[in-house]
Amino acid sequence: LALSTAALEIGIPTPPDGERLLELARRVKLFSAEDVETIRELWTEFVTKGGDSWYHFLIARRGGEMLGFACYGRRALTESTWDFYWLGVDQNAQGQGIGKVLLREVKESVRQHGGRLLLIETAGKPEFEPTRQFYLHTGCALEARIRDFYAPGDDLFIFTVRL
Amino acid sequence: LALSTAALEIGIPTPPDGERLLELARRVKLFSAEDVETIRELWTEFVTKGGDSWYHFLIARRGGEMLGFACYGRRALTESTWDFYWLGVDQNAQGQGIGKVLLREVKESVRQHGGRLLLIETAGKPEFEPTRQFYLHTGCALEARIRDFYAPGDDLFIFTVRL
Repeated sequence: LALSTAALEIGIPTPPDGERLLELARRVKLFSAEDVETIRELWTEFVTKGGDSWYHFLIARRGGEMLGFACYGRRALTESTWDFYWLGVDQNAQGQGIGKVLLREVKESVRQHGGRLLLIETAGKPEFEPTRQFYLHTGCALEARIRDFYAPGDDLFIFTVRL
Repeated sequence: LALSTAALEIGIPTPPDGERLLELARRVKLFSAEDVETIRELWTEFVTKGGDSWYHFLIARRGGEMLGFACYGRRALTESTWDFYWLGVDQNAQGQGIGKVLLREVKESVRQHGGRLLLIETAGKPEFEPTRQFYLHTGCALEARIRDFYAPGDDLFIFTVRL
């Protein structure tokens, strides 16, 4: 259990982190191949455009090993509303509070960018119940629900954080 | 009043229609400059990619004159959910049922593409009250609302049509 006592470091990733980040994403059981492909596209924009990128990434490391990542960005056509797009924690490092720390740092980053409202969209299918509970227990409010959004029987849940 | 008795024709626009379509959009009082720029980007993708475009357009003509347009497309990462992005009716041709006909044809097109759910996002500010009433009176259901989404005091209203 030495892992859980080492300090978790949160930082902005650089291009060489891409390979590990995508490998981590591929191993997250809740992410589909299409999800991973989308994350790859956002990552490519992030490393190509740098400070001009629409998408931002943060990663969590412990003892030099990447254990999680978050992806977020401004919502087009709004005044200071942001989206929390993806939160991935290594399949072997779940339940250690890494997601909670990443979410906290994303909130702080959005606040520093002048963000006022953070939206988190997640799925309604049964395997996402822990995800929904995670957001409910980390200060996010369930604000809206669109029935059958992802597929018949798989609703969209929209959580919000007011910053 | 000859205009209102001529038949309204709905069709798929071609590249030469772009100039008139964007001029029409610029004259719609509810569209901001940023909205028009977004419509221009979607139009460019539509004419560049043709059948592979993520975005679809329909236009309404009467006696050869373009009086309205609609833009819609698949929602990424969903199974047969579509978005109705933009509906623009010439500032001088409003109140003639053109929007209603365009919405009906968009529903029909989405249905033909195998779409199951159509989402319509619109603003909560007072000048959009007629827009919200339009959707409520054309078979769309108000399904969700995100407070202060566009700006403080300007909510997001999400209407749905189940096809």
